[in-house]
Amino acid sequence: MKLATLKDGTRDGQLAVVSRDLKTAVLADGIAGTLQRALDDWSFIAPQLDTLYRQLNDGKARRVFDFDPQRAMAPLPRAYQWADGSAYVNHVELVRKARKAEMPASFWEDPLMYQGGSDDFLGPCDPIVLAREEWGIDFEAEVAVITDDVPMGATPSDAFQQIRLLALVNDVSLRNLIPDELAKGFGFFQSKPATAFAPVAVTPDELGDAWRDAKVHLPLRSTWNGKLVGQPHAGTDMVFNFAQLIAHAAKTRNLRAGTIIGSGTVSNQDPKKGYSCIAEQRCLETIADGKPATPFMAFGDTIRIEMHDGDGKSIFGAIDQVVRQLGAVEVAGEKSK
Amino acid sequence: MKLATLKDGTRDGQLAVVSRDLKTAVLADGIAGTLQRALDDWSFIAPQLDTLYRQLNDGKARRVFDFDPQRAMAPLPRAYQWADGSAYVNHVELVRKARKAEMPASFWEDPLMYQGGSDDFLGPCDPIVLAREEWGIDFEAEVAVITDDVPMGATPSDAFQQIRLLALVNDVSLRNLIPDELAKGFGFFQSKPATAFAPVAVTPDELGDAWRDAKVHLPLRSTWNGKLVGQPHAGTDMVFNFAQLIAHAAKTRNLRAGTIIGSGTVSNQDPKKGYSCIAEQRCLETIADGKPATPFMAFGDTIRIEMHDGDGKSIFGAIDQVVRQLGAVEVAGEKSK
Repeated sequence: MKLATLKDGTRDGQLAVVSRDLKTAVLADGIAGTLQRALDDWSFIAPQLDTLYRQLNDGKARRVFDFDPQRAMAPLPRAYQWADGSAYVNHVELVRKARKAEMPASFWEDPLMYQGGSDDFLGPCDPIVLAREEWGIDFEAEVAVITDDVPMGATPSDAFQQIRLLALVNDVSLRNLIPDELAKGFGFFQSKPATAFAPVAVTPDELGDAWRDAKVHLPLRSTWNGKLVGQPHAGTDMVFNFAQLIAHAAKTRNLRAGTIIGSGTVSNQDPKKGYSCIAEQRCLETIADGKPATPFMAFGDTIRIEMHDGDGKSIFGAIDQVVRQLGAVEVAGEKSK
Repeated sequence: MKLATLKDGTRDGQLAVVSRDLKTAVLADGIAGTLQRALDDWSFIAPQLDTLYRQLNDGKARRVFDFDPQRAMAPLPRAYQWADGSAYVNHVELVRKARKAEMPASFWEDPLMYQGGSDDFLGPCDPIVLAREEWGIDFEAEVAVITDDVPMGATPSDAFQQIRLLALVNDVSLRNLIPDELAKGFGFFQSKPATAFAPVAVTPDELGDAWRDAKVHLPLRSTWNGKLVGQPHAGTDMVFNFAQLIAHAAKTRNLRAGTIIGSGTVSNQDPKKGYSCIAEQRCLETIADGKPATPFMAFGDTIRIEMHDGDGKSIFGAIDQVVRQLGAVEVAGEKSK
């Protein structure tokens, strides 16, 4: 089943069921007005959505319209929780290596995870609006899961049972704000602006055999300014699977339905697979040449993130964004450094 | 105006208007079903709630019932954003001093803030349920504001205009999980379990003269196991006011309506004011005697957090919680250390 949220002028948009080929859609308004509402009562709502999805794919649904990703919001335009892991430890190791810092051995056993802002997600074609290029604007291509309720202390196998949907994420990062912010010790905040999502969230069965071991075994393609820069395999080098990431998040708290858990930037040890964030390329350049050569994103740059199945068909639709400068407003708290 | 959310078996509860003396209440169901819904359209909804509030206080409302804090959920039982500052820099300095670490001078100019989990808040009388005492269970008494939409790049004075409600918070912390977690560099996650809120959120006008300079100028009382352990003044030693904290949060992103911004643990330089979290007392003991003497909370312990106006009347009602052990479940990822 594939689900999208359409712009209708409200904060939460309108839930739609999208055909497997992403060409057509039908509103789910008779079943659930919003995706959060569906997640709040999944066992009751999902079978009804699934019936509608079958009708749509079989050409038997009524009031069908063309699906336009430009009209899509994030599947959850705002969510109660967004927690992003860093499961591709290769990425973390590279970043450390570039700044000649040892990575603690515990990073291979204990997942890194940060709490992200979830009140203002971007739709797949919404611009990335920011005030300053100097902040070091970067994309991060990731896979994410959306869970049902997960009780505190859930084991990975318990957690696995609570995965309801999969999604693609562009976890936009402001690289030049990160060092000072992390040095303060409280994690990311200003360095993580609004996160974007691909047009549809899909149930795990849509991936067939590519969904196994709580990992997505397909390449994730990142195309920056029209040039393919990365196609690492999301099932390779993922040190912690989604079941483990969810269990990590639930160790000391309940996770409520609609919680989004990210994989972190998809990254393979094989450098021929390219990169899912510019920072990684810059790290490789720094390790090789002592300094980075590739700049971060400029206003006007585009980033496209997409995942295809074995037949070359897009599963989630594409994140397809342009970076734009915020109108001439004063940026509070900004100081020359 | 004072607003509460009552338990009705749903995830978001039912919005109620509570009388100024916290004795009676009336459902706001004809106006807005939930507090988030009211915040989503505040300029339209708030005047209607205010009319009902006046009727209630004047004894003219219908279907009035006794207000029972036991039945209250957090005013927002789940929220789209909870970002907690650390505005009482004295607290931060003490913690550093106890471990003989210098505090960077920038901490006096650039607010510390972490992104908290907001999907599963506790009501004022809900137990603090956790698996292990050894995690170092601590309370943190704080003041918080709930905002309307705040655009990216808002100045402090812009931000001030978007403050809609004030609240009291118990930002429960697991002290013994913090060092390892912060050492990983990504901030708090497992060390910050569910946060609790006082029964009512209030509009700033309820504080009269005590709300000025975007600070609450009243003492915040913490009573642990029946003993008053702290009554620091929330208007004293608050280095960043709420307008500055909101602007900090909005530097690189829009904040959407219902965003909760916390002050951090209220702490005065005058040690006679006591403490709003046990960690601070333990720091004072460590500085004086080389080691802490006061233990963290045990299962069965109680914590009461409350703020009174100049006439000794409770403004928000009390956070009044007991610490309970989670049923015998396996705790995922836990290892002996």
